[in-house]
Amino acid sequence: MKRVGFIGLGIMGKPMAGNILKAGFPLTVFNRTRSKMEELVRGGAKPAGSPKEVASASDVVVTMVSDSQAVKEVVLGEGGIIEGAAAGSSVIDMSTISPEVTRGVASELAEKGINLLDAPVSGGQTGARAGTLSIMVGGERKAFEECLPVFEAMGKKIVHVGPSGDGQTVKLCNQVICALNILAVSEGILLASRAGVDTEKMLEAVGAGSAASWMLANVGPKMVSRDFEPGFMVWLQQKDLSLVLDLAKSLNLPLPGTSLVNQLFRSGEARGLREKGTQSLITSLEMLAAWEVKPNG
Amino acid sequence: MKRVGFIGLGIMGKPMAGNILKAGFPLTVFNRTRSKMEELVRGGAKPAGSPKEVASASDVVVTMVSDSQAVKEVVLGEGGIIEGAAAGSSVIDMSTISPEVTRGVASELAEKGINLLDAPVSGGQTGARAGTLSIMVGGERKAFEECLPVFEAMGKKIVHVGPSGDGQTVKLCNQVICALNILAVSEGILLASRAGVDTEKMLEAVGAGSAASWMLANVGPKMVSRDFEPGFMVWLQQKDLSLVLDLAKSLNLPLPGTSLVNQLFRSGEARGLREKGTQSLITSLEMLAAWEVKPNG
Repeated sequence: MKRVGFIGLGIMGKPMAGNILKAGFPLTVFNRTRSKMEELVRGGAKPAGSPKEVASASDVVVTMVSDSQAVKEVVLGEGGIIEGAAAGSSVIDMSTISPEVTRGVASELAEKGINLLDAPVSGGQTGARAGTLSIMVGGERKAFEECLPVFEAMGKKIVHVGPSGDGQTVKLCNQVICALNILAVSEGILLASRAGVDTEKMLEAVGAGSAASWMLANVGPKMVSRDFEPGFMVWLQQKDLSLVLDLAKSLNLPLPGTSLVNQLFRSGEARGLREKGTQSLITSLEMLAAWEVKPNG
Repeated sequence: MKRVGFIGLGIMGKPMAGNILKAGFPLTVFNRTRSKMEELVRGGAKPAGSPKEVASASDVVVTMVSDSQAVKEVVLGEGGIIEGAAAGSSVIDMSTISPEVTRGVASELAEKGINLLDAPVSGGQTGARAGTLSIMVGGERKAFEECLPVFEAMGKKIVHVGPSGDGQTVKLCNQVICALNILAVSEGILLASRAGVDTEKMLEAVGAGSAASWMLANVGPKMVSRDFEPGFMVWLQQKDLSLVLDLAKSLNLPLPGTSLVNQLFRSGEARGLREKGTQSLITSLEMLAAWEVKPNG
Protein backbone atom coordinates (compact mmCIF):
# COMPACT_ATOMS: atom_id res chain seq x y z
CA MET A 1 0.00 0.00 0.00
CA LYS A 2 1.35 3.39 -1.01
CA ARG A 3 2.57 5.76 1.70
CA VAL A 4 0.56 8.97 1.28
CA GLY A 5 1.39 12.53 2.30
CA PHE A 6 -1.13 15.35 2.62
CA ILE A 7 -0.34 19.07 2.67
CA GLY A 8 -3.04 21.68 3.30
CA LEU A 9 -5.59 20.73 5.94
CA GLY A 10 -8.22 23.41 5.39
CA ILE A 11 -11.97 23.15 5.12
CA MET A 12 -11.58 20.67 2.21
CA GLY A 13 -8.18 19.12 2.84
CA LYS A 14 -8.81 17.92 6.36
CA PRO A 15 -11.81 15.69 5.64
CA MET A 16 -10.12 14.46 2.43
CA ALA A 17 -7.00 13.47 4.40
CA GLY A 18 -9.28 11.85 6.96
CA ASN A 19 -10.78 9.65 4.26
CA ILE A 20 -7.31 8.58 3.09
CA LEU A 21 -6.50 7.56 6.66
CA LYS A 22 -9.81 5.70 6.95
CA ALA A 23 -9.00 3.77 3.77
CA GLY A 24 -5.93 2.40 5.55
CA PHE A 25 -3.09 4.29 3.86
CA PRO A 26 -0.07 5.18 6.04
CA LEU A 27 -0.41 8.99 6.16
CA THR A 28 2.01 11.85 6.84
CA VAL A 29 0.54 15.35 7.11
CA PHE A 30 1.73 18.95 7.10
CA ASN A 31 -0.10 22.21 7.63
CA ARG A 32 1.30 25.70 8.20
CA THR A 33 -1.07 26.22 11.13
CA ARG A 34 0.12 23.20 13.10
CA SER A 35 -2.97 22.89 15.28
CA LYS A 36 -4.96 21.71 12.27
CA MET A 37 -2.88 18.52 12.20
CA GLU A 38 -3.87 17.41 15.72
CA GLU A 39 -7.08 15.57 14.94
CA LEU A 40 -5.50 13.57 12.13
CA VAL A 41 -2.45 12.78 14.26
CA ARG A 42 -4.73 11.46 16.99
CA GLY A 43 -6.30 9.33 14.25
CA GLY A 44 -2.94 7.77 13.36
CA ALA A 45 -1.29 10.20 10.92
CA LYS A 46 2.35 11.20 11.36
CA PRO A 47 3.04 14.95 11.59
CA ALA A 48 5.84 16.44 9.51
CA GLY A 49 7.76 19.71 9.87
CA SER A 50 7.78 20.70 6.19
CA PRO A 51 6.51 19.69 2.76
CA LYS A 52 10.01 18.27 2.13
CA GLU A 53 9.67 15.99 5.17
CA VAL A 54 6.24 14.85 3.98
CA ALA A 55 7.68 14.00 0.58
CA SER A 56 10.61 12.06 2.07
CA ALA A 57 8.17 9.83 3.91
CA SER A 58 5.69 9.30 1.03
CA ASP A 59 5.18 7.65 -2.36
CA VAL A 60 2.32 10.00 -3.20
CA VAL A 61 1.94 13.55 -1.90
CA VAL A 62 -1.42 15.31 -2.12
CA THR A 63 -1.58 19.12 -1.97
CA MET A 64 -4.78 21.05 -1.27
CA VAL A 65 -3.87 24.72 -0.87
CA SER A 66 -5.39 28.07 -1.75
CA ASP A 67 -3.92 29.26 -5.05
CA SER A 68 -1.23 29.09 -7.77
CA GLN A 69 1.33 30.88 -5.59
CA ALA A 70 0.77 28.53 -2.67
CA VAL A 71 1.19 25.47 -4.92
CA LYS A 72 4.48 26.83 -6.31
CA GLU A 73 5.81 27.46 -2.79
CA VAL A 74 4.78 24.12 -1.35
CA VAL A 75 6.06 22.12 -4.32
CA LEU A 76 9.07 24.07 -5.60
CA GLY A 77 9.99 26.47 -2.74
CA GLU A 78 12.57 26.12 0.02
CA GLY A 79 11.81 23.03 2.06
CA GLY A 80 9.33 22.09 -0.65
CA ILE A 81 8.19 18.71 -1.94
CA ILE A 82 10.75 18.72 -4.74
CA GLU A 83 13.57 18.56 -2.15
CA GLY A 84 12.22 15.41 -0.52
CA ALA A 85 10.44 13.45 -3.23
CA ALA A 86 12.06 10.42 -4.83
CA ALA A 87 12.20 9.83 -8.57
CA GLY A 88 9.15 7.80 -9.59
CA SER A 89 6.96 9.27 -6.85
CA SER A 90 3.83 11.31 -7.60
CA VAL A 91 2.44 14.66 -6.52
CA ILE A 92 -1.34 15.12 -6.77
CA ASP A 93 -2.36 18.77 -6.67
CA MET A 94 -6.06 19.00 -5.84
CA SER A 95 -6.14 22.79 -5.47
CA THR A 96 -7.89 24.84 -8.15
CA ILE A 97 -5.14 26.84 -9.87
CA SER A 98 -4.08 28.09 -13.29
CA PRO A 99 -3.64 25.35 -15.94
CA GLU A 100 -0.54 27.19 -17.15
CA VAL A 101 1.08 27.26 -13.70
CA THR A 102 0.22 23.55 -13.40
CA ARG A 103 2.10 22.75 -16.60
CA GLY A 104 5.10 24.81 -15.41
CA VAL A 105 5.27 22.98 -12.06
CA ALA A 106 4.81 19.64 -13.83
CA SER A 107 7.77 20.24 -16.10
CA GLU A 108 10.04 21.22 -13.20
CA LEU A 109 9.04 18.07 -11.31
CA ALA A 110 9.49 15.96 -14.44
CA GLU A 111 13.16 16.96 -14.57
CA LYS A 112 13.62 15.05 -11.29
CA GLY A 113 11.50 12.13 -12.47
CA ILE A 114 8.53 13.14 -10.27
CA ASN A 115 4.99 12.94 -11.70
CA LEU A 116 2.46 15.72 -11.23
CA LEU A 117 -1.25 15.03 -11.52
CA ASP A 118 -3.58 18.04 -11.43
CA ALA A 119 -6.77 16.80 -9.82
CA PRO A 120 -9.16 19.56 -8.74
CA VAL A 121 -12.45 18.56 -7.22
CA SER A 122 -16.13 19.45 -7.26
CA GLY A 123 -18.65 18.67 -4.55
CA GLY A 124 -17.71 21.05 -1.73
CA GLN A 125 -17.22 20.31 1.94
CA THR A 126 -20.13 17.85 1.94
CA GLY A 127 -18.52 15.81 -0.81
CA ALA A 128 -15.12 16.05 0.87
CA ARG A 129 -16.54 14.64 4.11
CA ALA A 130 -18.59 11.91 2.46
CA GLY A 131 -15.78 10.90 0.09
CA THR A 132 -18.07 11.55 -2.87
CA LEU A 133 -16.12 14.28 -4.66
CA SER A 134 -15.96 14.52 -8.43
CA ILE A 135 -12.26 14.52 -9.37
CA MET A 136 -11.07 15.69 -12.79
CA VAL A 137 -7.51 14.56 -13.40
CA GLY A 138 -4.86 15.81 -15.81
CA GLY A 139 -1.42 14.25 -16.30
CA GLU A 140 0.10 10.97 -17.47
CA ARG A 141 -2.27 8.04 -17.60
CA LYS A 142 0.25 5.67 -15.98
CA ALA A 143 0.63 7.94 -12.93
CA PHE A 144 -3.17 8.35 -12.83
CA GLU A 145 -3.68 4.60 -12.72
CA GLU A 146 -1.07 4.15 -9.99
CA CYS A 147 -2.77 6.79 -7.87
CA LEU A 148 -6.34 5.62 -8.50
CA PRO A 149 -6.73 3.87 -5.09
CA VAL A 150 -5.82 7.17 -3.40
CA PHE A 151 -8.41 9.04 -5.50
CA GLU A 152 -11.01 6.39 -4.72
CA ALA A 153 -10.58 7.07 -1.02
CA MET A 154 -11.73 10.67 -1.61
CA GLY A 155 -14.09 10.68 -4.57
CA LYS A 156 -16.81 8.89 -6.46
CA LYS A 157 -16.64 10.19 -10.02
CA ILE A 158 -12.98 10.13 -11.04
CA VAL A 159 -12.18 10.95 -14.66
CA HIS A 160 -8.79 11.18 -16.35
CA VAL A 161 -9.56 14.03 -18.73
CA GLY A 162 -6.21 14.52 -20.53
CA PRO A 163 -2.58 15.60 -20.20
CA SER A 164 -1.13 17.94 -17.56
CA GLY A 165 -3.27 21.04 -16.94
CA ASP A 166 -6.45 19.56 -18.41
CA GLY A 167 -7.82 18.70 -14.98
CA GLN A 168 -7.55 22.39 -14.08
CA THR A 169 -9.13 23.47 -17.36
CA VAL A 170 -12.08 21.11 -16.82
CA LYS A 171 -12.48 22.45 -13.29
CA LEU A 172 -12.66 25.97 -14.75
CA CYS A 173 -15.36 24.77 -17.20
CA ASN A 174 -17.16 23.35 -14.17
CA GLN A 175 -17.00 26.75 -12.45
CA VAL A 176 -18.35 28.52 -15.56
CA ILE A 177 -21.34 26.19 -15.63
CA CYS A 178 -21.93 26.43 -11.87
CA ALA A 179 -21.78 30.23 -11.87
CA LEU A 180 -24.23 30.57 -14.75
CA ASN A 181 -26.55 27.97 -13.22
CA ILE A 182 -26.62 30.11 -10.07
CA LEU A 183 -27.52 33.15 -12.19
CA ALA A 184 -30.29 31.07 -13.81
CA VAL A 185 -31.81 30.16 -10.46
CA SER A 186 -31.45 33.76 -9.22
CA GLU A 187 -33.30 35.29 -12.17
CA GLY A 188 -36.01 32.61 -12.05
CA ILE A 189 -36.67 33.15 -8.34
CA LEU A 190 -36.56 36.91 -8.64
CA LEU A 191 -39.08 36.89 -11.51
CA ALA A 192 -41.42 34.62 -9.55
CA SER A 193 -41.18 36.77 -6.44
CA ARG A 194 -41.58 40.09 -8.25
CA ALA A 195 -44.61 38.69 -10.11
CA GLY A 196 -46.17 37.63 -6.81
CA VAL A 197 -45.82 33.87 -7.23
CA ASP A 198 -44.98 31.50 -4.38
CA THR A 199 -41.24 30.92 -4.91
CA GLU A 200 -41.18 27.55 -3.16
CA LYS A 201 -43.99 26.26 -5.36
CA MET A 202 -42.13 27.57 -8.40
CA LEU A 203 -39.00 25.64 -7.39
CA GLU A 204 -41.08 22.52 -6.81
CA ALA A 205 -42.90 22.78 -10.14
CA VAL A 206 -39.85 23.40 -12.33
CA GLY A 207 -37.38 21.19 -10.47
CA ALA A 208 -38.50 17.95 -12.10
CA GLY A 209 -38.34 19.14 -15.73
CA SER A 210 -35.84 20.63 -18.13
CA ALA A 211 -34.95 23.43 -15.69
CA ALA A 212 -33.59 20.90 -13.19
CA SER A 213 -30.07 21.37 -11.88
CA TRP A 214 -27.93 20.62 -8.86
CA MET A 215 -27.91 24.37 -8.19
CA LEU A 216 -31.70 24.65 -8.39
CA ALA A 217 -32.10 21.82 -5.90
CA ASN A 218 -29.32 22.88 -3.51
CA VAL A 219 -29.01 26.63 -3.77
CA GLY A 220 -32.57 27.62 -4.79
CA PRO A 221 -34.16 26.84 -1.39
CA LYS A 222 -31.39 28.80 0.38
CA MET A 223 -32.09 31.86 -1.77
CA VAL A 224 -35.78 31.62 -0.94
CA SER A 225 -35.25 31.15 2.80
CA ARG A 226 -32.61 33.94 2.84
CA ASP A 227 -29.90 31.58 4.10
CA PHE A 228 -26.64 33.04 2.83
CA GLU A 229 -24.26 30.96 4.96
CA PRO A 230 -21.50 29.57 2.78
CA GLY A 231 -21.40 26.22 1.13
CA PHE A 232 -18.95 27.81 -1.30
CA MET A 233 -17.78 31.37 -0.56
CA VAL A 234 -18.15 34.28 -2.97
CA TRP A 235 -14.44 35.17 -2.89
CA LEU A 236 -13.45 31.61 -3.79
CA GLN A 237 -15.92 31.59 -6.68
CA GLN A 238 -14.43 34.91 -7.79
CA LYS A 239 -10.90 33.54 -7.54
CA ASP A 240 -11.95 30.73 -9.86
CA LEU A 241 -13.78 33.05 -12.26
CA SER A 242 -10.64 35.20 -12.41
CA LEU A 243 -8.69 32.10 -13.48
CA VAL A 244 -11.43 31.43 -16.08
CA LEU A 245 -11.33 34.96 -17.46
CA ASP A 246 -7.50 35.00 -17.52
CA LEU A 247 -7.48 31.74 -19.44
CA ALA A 248 -10.22 32.97 -21.80
CA LYS A 249 -8.28 36.19 -22.38
CA SER A 250 -5.15 34.26 -23.27
CA LEU A 251 -7.26 32.29 -25.78
CA ASN A 252 -9.02 35.37 -27.25
CA LEU A 253 -12.29 33.81 -26.13
CA PRO A 254 -15.25 36.06 -25.25
CA LEU A 255 -17.42 34.57 -22.49
CA PRO A 256 -20.20 37.15 -22.11
CA GLY A 257 -22.29 35.16 -19.61
CA THR A 258 -19.39 34.30 -17.32
CA SER A 259 -18.23 37.88 -17.47
CA LEU A 260 -21.67 39.12 -16.41
CA VAL A 261 -21.81 36.74 -13.44
CA ASN A 262 -18.32 37.83 -12.41
CA GLN A 263 -19.48 41.47 -12.37
CA LEU A 264 -22.62 40.62 -10.39
CA PHE A 265 -20.56 38.73 -7.80
CA ARG A 266 -18.34 41.81 -7.63
CA SER A 267 -21.38 43.78 -6.51
CA GLY A 268 -21.69 41.25 -3.69
CA GLU A 269 -18.04 41.80 -2.77
CA ALA A 270 -18.67 45.57 -2.80
CA ARG A 271 -21.51 45.01 -0.33
CA GLY A 272 -19.40 42.98 2.12
CA LEU A 273 -20.56 39.51 1.03
CA ARG A 274 -17.09 38.03 0.29
CA GLU A 275 -17.47 35.31 2.85
CA LYS A 276 -21.13 34.56 2.21
CA GLY A 277 -22.25 31.67 0.03
CA THR A 278 -22.52 31.98 -3.76
CA GLN A 279 -26.33 31.88 -3.44
CA SER A 280 -26.00 35.52 -2.33
CA LEU A 281 -25.65 36.32 -6.06
CA ILE A 282 -29.40 36.88 -6.02
CA THR A 283 -28.91 39.97 -3.84
CA SER A 284 -26.99 41.70 -6.66
CA LEU A 285 -30.05 41.32 -8.89
CA GLU A 286 -32.26 42.47 -6.02
CA MET A 287 -30.15 45.64 -5.77
CA LEU A 288 -30.74 46.32 -9.48
CA ALA A 289 -34.46 45.80 -9.05
CA ALA A 290 -34.92 47.57 -5.71
CA TRP A 291 -36.82 44.44 -4.70
CA GLU A 292 -36.11 41.73 -2.18
CA VAL A 293 -37.33 38.14 -2.38
CA LYS A 294 -39.40 37.40 0.69
CA PRO A 295 -38.77 34.28 2.73
CA ASN A 296 -41.57 31.77 2.20
CA GLY A 297 -42.66 29.42 4.92
CA MET B 1 -65.61 9.88 -15.97
CA LYS B 2 -65.38 13.39 -17.33
CA ARG B 3 -65.91 13.97 -21.04
CA VAL B 4 -62.75 15.66 -22.33
CA GLY B 5 -62.24 17.90 -25.35
CA PHE B 6 -58.87 18.71 -26.91
CA ILE B 7 -58.11 21.62 -29.23
CA GLY B 8 -54.71 22.01 -30.93
CA LEU B 9 -53.15 18.77 -32.11
CA GLY B 10 -49.62 19.96 -32.90
CA ILE B 11 -46.29 18.42 -32.02
CA MET B 12 -47.21 18.54 -28.31
CA GLY B 13 -51.02 18.43 -28.36
CA LYS B 14 -51.42 15.25 -30.38
CA PRO B 15 -49.47 12.93 -28.09
CA MET B 16 -51.05 14.60 -25.04
CA ALA B 17 -54.54 13.99 -26.44
CA GLY B 18 -53.47 10.44 -27.22
CA ASN B 19 -52.62 9.87 -23.57
CA ILE B 20 -56.02 11.19 -22.48
CA LEU B 21 -57.64 8.70 -24.83
CA LYS B 22 -55.43 5.90 -23.53
CA ALA B 23 -56.48 6.72 -19.97
CA GLY B 24 -60.07 5.95 -21.01
CA PHE B 25 -61.67 9.40 -21.15
CA PRO B 26 -64.35 9.95 -23.81
CA LEU B 27 -62.55 12.45 -26.09
CA THR B 28 -63.69 15.02 -28.65
CA VAL B 29 -61.02 16.74 -30.73
CA PHE B 30 -60.64 19.75 -33.00
CA ASN B 31 -57.77 21.02 -35.09
CA ARG B 32 -57.74 23.70 -37.78
CA THR B 33 -55.80 21.41 -40.09
CA ARG B 34 -58.38 18.61 -40.07
CA SER B 35 -55.97 15.86 -41.21
CA LYS B 36 -54.21 16.01 -37.85
CA MET B 37 -57.36 14.63 -36.19
CA GLU B 38 -57.40 11.39 -38.21
CA GLU B 39 -55.11 9.26 -36.09
CA LEU B 40 -56.94 10.14 -32.88
CA VAL B 41 -60.32 9.55 -34.51
CA ARG B 42 -59.17 6.10 -35.62
CA GLY B 43 -58.19 5.58 -31.98
CA GLY B 44 -61.76 6.35 -30.82
CA ALA B 45 -61.92 10.16 -30.50
CA LYS B 46 -64.89 12.07 -31.92
CA PRO B 47 -64.06 14.83 -34.41
CA ALA B 48 -65.73 18.22 -34.01
CA GLY B 49 -66.21 21.10 -36.45
CA SER B 50 -65.33 23.95 -34.11
CA PRO B 51 -64.09 24.76 -30.59
CA LYS B 52 -67.76 25.52 -29.75
CA GLU B 53 -68.75 21.99 -30.79
CA VAL B 54 -65.93 20.51 -28.70
CA ALA B 55 -67.12 22.49 -25.68
CA SER B 56 -70.76 21.42 -26.11
CA ALA B 57 -69.68 17.78 -25.94
CA SER B 58 -67.24 18.10 -23.01
CA ASP B 59 -66.97 18.72 -19.27
CA VAL B 60 -63.32 19.73 -19.59
CA VAL B 61 -61.74 21.32 -22.66
CA VAL B 62 -57.96 21.35 -23.07
CA THR B 63 -56.32 23.89 -25.39
CA MET B 64 -52.76 23.56 -26.66
CA VAL B 65 -52.18 26.27 -29.25
CA SER B 66 -49.35 28.55 -30.31
CA ASP B 67 -49.74 31.91 -28.58
CA SER B 68 -51.88 34.43 -26.66
CA GLN B 69 -53.79 35.46 -29.79
CA ALA B 70 -54.65 31.86 -30.68
CA VAL B 71 -55.92 31.19 -27.15
CA LYS B 72 -58.16 34.28 -27.29
CA GLU B 73 -59.61 33.20 -30.64
CA VAL B 74 -60.20 29.58 -29.70
CA VAL B 75 -61.74 30.43 -26.32
CA LEU B 76 -63.52 33.76 -26.85
CA GLY B 77 -63.79 34.14 -30.66
CA GLU B 78 -66.66 33.30 -33.02
CA GLY B 79 -67.47 29.61 -32.72
CA GLY B 80 -65.23 29.56 -29.68
CA ILE B 81 -65.35 27.48 -26.51
CA ILE B 82 -67.28 30.15 -24.61
CA GLU B 83 -70.24 29.64 -26.96
CA GLY B 84 -70.50 25.93 -26.23
CA ALA B 85 -69.31 25.41 -22.68
CA ALA B 86 -71.78 24.86 -19.84
CA ALA B 87 -71.59 26.70 -16.53
CA GLY B 88 -69.50 24.65 -14.12
CA SER B 89 -67.30 23.20 -16.86
CA SER B 90 -63.55 23.82 -17.04
CA VAL B 91 -61.12 25.00 -19.69
CA ILE B 92 -57.47 23.97 -19.26
CA ASP B 93 -55.11 26.07 -21.33
CA MET B 94 -51.79 24.26 -21.63
CA SER B 95 -50.25 26.69 -24.14
CA THR B 96 -47.48 29.01 -22.97
CA ILE B 97 -48.93 32.54 -23.13
CA SER B 98 -48.93 35.84 -21.29
CA PRO B 99 -50.05 35.64 -17.62
CA GLU B 100 -51.96 38.89 -18.16
CA VAL B 101 -53.88 37.56 -21.16
CA THR B 102 -54.61 34.44 -19.12
CA ARG B 103 -56.19 36.48 -16.34
CA GLY B 104 -58.26 38.43 -18.90
CA VAL B 105 -59.59 35.26 -20.52
CA ALA B 106 -60.27 33.75 -17.09
CA SER B 107 -62.40 36.68 -16.02
CA GLU B 108 -64.47 36.59 -19.23
CA LEU B 109 -65.08 32.87 -18.75
CA ALA B 110 -65.89 33.39 -15.07
CA GLU B 111 -68.80 35.62 -16.05
CA LYS B 112 -70.42 32.54 -17.60
CA GLY B 113 -69.50 30.32 -14.68
CA ILE B 114 -66.72 28.56 -16.62
CA ASN B 115 -63.39 27.86 -14.88
CA LEU B 116 -60.06 28.51 -16.54
CA LEU B 117 -56.93 26.72 -15.41
CA ASP B 118 -53.65 27.85 -16.94
CA ALA B 119 -51.47 24.76 -17.07
CA PRO B 120 -48.36 25.15 -19.23
CA VAL B 121 -45.96 22.23 -19.40
CA SER B 122 -42.28 21.41 -19.41
CA GLY B 123 -40.69 18.25 -20.77
CA GLY B 124 -40.97 18.64 -24.54
CA GLN B 125 -42.21 16.18 -27.10
CA THR B 126 -40.55 13.29 -25.28
CA GLY B 127 -42.46 14.10 -22.10
CA ALA B 128 -45.69 14.65 -24.06
CA ARG B 129 -45.40 11.17 -25.61
CA ALA B 130 -44.38 9.40 -22.42
CA GLY B 131 -47.00 11.19 -20.32
CA THR B 132 -44.27 12.48 -18.01
CA LEU B 133 -44.70 16.24 -18.45
CA SER B 134 -44.23 18.68 -15.60
CA ILE B 135 -47.45 20.70 -15.36
CA MET B 136 -47.59 24.01 -13.47
CA VAL B 137 -51.19 24.99 -12.79
CA GLY B 138 -52.77 28.34 -11.95
CA GLY B 139 -56.43 28.88 -11.10
CA GLU B 140 -58.93 27.88 -8.46
CA ARG B 141 -57.94 24.94 -6.33
CA LYS B 142 -61.38 23.31 -6.57
CA ALA B 143 -61.27 23.28 -10.38
CA PHE B 144 -57.67 22.00 -10.19
CA GLU B 145 -58.71 19.10 -8.00
CA GLU B 146 -61.62 18.22 -10.27
CA CYS B 147 -59.33 18.16 -13.29
CA LEU B 148 -56.49 16.28 -11.61
CA PRO B 149 -57.29 12.90 -13.26
CA VAL B 150 -57.03 14.59 -16.66
CA PHE B 151 -53.66 16.12 -15.74
CA GLU B 152 -52.47 12.76 -14.45
CA ALA B 153 -53.08 11.24 -17.87
CA MET B 154 -50.54 13.65 -19.36
CA GLY B 155 -47.98 14.45 -16.69
CA LYS B 156 -45.97 13.21 -13.77
CA LYS B 157 -45.11 16.28 -11.70
CA ILE B 158 -48.32 18.29 -11.35
CA VAL B 159 -48.22 21.31 -9.05
CA HIS B 160 -50.98 23.81 -8.28
CA VAL B 161 -48.83 26.92 -7.95
CA GLY B 162 -51.41 29.65 -7.26
CA PRO B 163 -54.30 31.68 -8.65
CA SER B 164 -55.06 32.36 -12.31
CA GLY B 165 -51.98 33.32 -14.34
CA ASP B 166 -49.47 31.87 -11.85
CA GLY B 167 -49.06 28.71 -13.93
CA GLN B 168 -47.93 30.90 -16.83
CA THR B 169 -45.64 32.95 -14.62
CA VAL B 170 -43.99 29.80 -13.28
CA LYS B 171 -43.58 28.51 -16.84
CA LEU B 172 -41.81 31.78 -17.69
CA CYS B 173 -39.50 31.28 -14.67
CA ASN B 174 -38.86 27.79 -16.03
CA GLN B 175 -37.88 29.26 -19.39
CA VAL B 176 -35.53 31.78 -17.78
CA ILE B 177 -33.74 28.99 -15.95
CA CYS B 178 -33.63 26.72 -19.02
CA ALA B 179 -32.25 29.46 -21.26
CA LEU B 180 -29.49 30.42 -18.81
CA ASN B 181 -28.64 26.76 -18.20
CA ILE B 182 -28.14 26.41 -21.97
CA LEU B 183 -25.82 29.42 -21.92
CA ALA B 184 -23.93 27.79 -19.03
CA VAL B 185 -23.37 24.58 -20.98
CA SER B 186 -22.43 26.55 -24.12
CA GLU B 187 -19.74 28.60 -22.39
CA GLY B 188 -18.38 25.57 -20.56
CA ILE B 189 -18.06 23.50 -23.74
CA LEU B 190 -16.61 26.39 -25.72
CA LEU B 191 -13.95 27.04 -23.07
CA ALA B 192 -13.00 23.36 -22.99
CA SER B 193 -12.80 23.16 -26.78
CA ARG B 194 -10.84 26.38 -27.20
CA ALA B 195 -8.40 25.28 -24.48
CA GLY B 196 -7.86 21.99 -26.29
CA VAL B 197 -9.60 19.72 -23.79
CA ASP B 198 -11.72 16.72 -24.81
CA THR B 199 -15.25 18.11 -24.56
CA GLU B 200 -16.89 14.72 -23.99
CA LYS B 201 -14.54 13.98 -21.09
CA MET B 202 -15.31 17.43 -19.68
CA LEU B 203 -19.06 16.72 -19.78
CA GLU B 204 -18.50 13.35 -18.14
CA ALA B 205 -16.29 14.76 -15.39
CA VAL B 206 -18.50 17.69 -14.41
CA GLY B 207 -21.89 16.02 -14.95
CA ALA B 208 -21.93 14.24 -11.61
CA GLY B 209 -21.13 17.26 -9.44
CA SER B 210 -22.45 20.72 -8.72
CA ALA B 211 -22.49 21.63 -12.44
CA ALA B 212 -25.08 18.92 -13.14
CA SER B 213 -28.27 19.91 -14.93
CA TRP B 214 -30.91 18.45 -17.22
CA MET B 215 -29.52 20.71 -19.94
CA LEU B 216 -25.94 19.53 -19.43
CA ALA B 217 -27.06 15.91 -19.71
CA ASN B 218 -29.47 16.38 -22.61
CA VAL B 219 -28.23 19.30 -24.65
CA GLY B 220 -24.46 19.17 -23.93
CA PRO B 221 -23.80 16.00 -25.97
CA LYS B 222 -25.77 17.46 -28.91
CA MET B 223 -23.61 20.60 -28.88
CA VAL B 224 -20.48 18.47 -28.90
CA SER B 225 -21.67 16.17 -31.70
CA ARG B 226 -22.96 19.17 -33.71
CA ASP B 227 -26.52 17.84 -33.72
CA PHE B 228 -28.71 20.91 -33.99
CA GLU B 229 -31.99 19.18 -34.82
CA PRO B 230 -34.77 20.56 -32.63
CA GLY B 231 -35.95 19.19 -29.37
CA PHE B 232 -37.22 22.71 -28.70
CA MET B 233 -36.96 25.26 -31.51
CA VAL B 234 -35.14 28.58 -31.23
CA TRP B 235 -38.16 30.64 -32.33
CA LEU B 236 -40.36 29.05 -29.67
CA GLN B 237 -37.74 29.74 -27.01
CA GLN B 238 -37.59 33.33 -28.27
CA LYS B 239 -41.39 33.62 -28.15
CA ASP B 240 -41.23 32.57 -24.51
CA LEU B 241 -38.31 34.88 -23.69
CA SER B 242 -40.29 37.75 -25.24
CA LEU B 243 -43.13 36.95 -22.84
CA VAL B 244 -40.58 36.93 -20.00
CA LEU B 245 -39.06 40.25 -20.97
CA ASP B 246 -42.51 41.85 -21.48
CA LEU B 247 -43.57 40.67 -18.04
CA ALA B 248 -40.28 41.83 -16.50
CA LYS B 249 -40.66 45.22 -18.18
CA SER B 250 -44.15 45.62 -16.77
CA LEU B 251 -42.68 44.85 -13.33
CA ASN B 252 -39.65 47.19 -13.71
CA LEU B 253 -37.47 44.14 -13.25
CA PRO B 254 -34.00 44.03 -14.86
CA LEU B 255 -33.01 40.49 -15.89
CA PRO B 256 -29.52 40.97 -17.33
CA GLY B 257 -28.74 37.28 -17.89
CA THR B 258 -32.04 36.49 -19.61
CA SER B 259 -31.64 39.56 -21.75
CA LEU B 260 -28.17 38.45 -22.84
CA VAL B 261 -29.40 34.97 -23.81
CA ASN B 262 -32.27 36.54 -25.74
CA GLN B 263 -29.78 38.61 -27.75
CA LEU B 264 -27.53 35.61 -28.39
CA PHE B 265 -30.51 33.58 -29.65
CA ARG B 266 -31.30 36.54 -31.90
CA SER B 267 -27.92 36.07 -33.54
CA GLY B 268 -29.03 32.51 -34.27
CA GLU B 269 -32.25 33.82 -35.82
CA ALA B 270 -30.18 36.24 -37.91
CA ARG B 271 -28.17 33.28 -39.17
CA GLY B 272 -31.22 31.26 -40.23
CA LEU B 273 -31.42 28.97 -37.17
CA ARG B 274 -35.04 29.76 -36.20
CA GLU B 275 -36.14 26.17 -36.59
CA LYS B 276 -33.03 24.56 -35.15
CA GLY B 277 -32.86 23.36 -31.56
CA THR B 278 -31.98 25.67 -28.68
CA GLN B 279 -28.61 23.90 -28.34
CA SER B 280 -27.60 25.95 -31.40
CA LEU B 281 -27.09 28.82 -28.93
CA ILE B 282 -23.48 27.71 -28.79
CA THR B 283 -22.99 28.82 -32.40
CA SER B 284 -23.65 32.44 -31.41
CA LEU B 285 -20.72 32.24 -29.00
CA GLU B 286 -18.66 30.50 -31.66
CA MET B 287 -19.33 33.44 -33.99
CA LEU B 288 -18.02 35.85 -31.34
CA ALA B 289 -14.91 33.75 -30.87
CA ALA B 290 -14.25 32.84 -34.52
CA TRP B 291 -13.91 29.29 -33.22
CA GLU B 292 -15.98 26.19 -33.76
CA VAL B 293 -16.29 23.29 -31.35
CA LYS B 294 -15.12 20.12 -33.09
CA PRO B 295 -17.23 17.00 -32.98
CA ASN B 296 -15.61 14.41 -30.71
CA GLY B 297 -15.93 10.73 -31.42
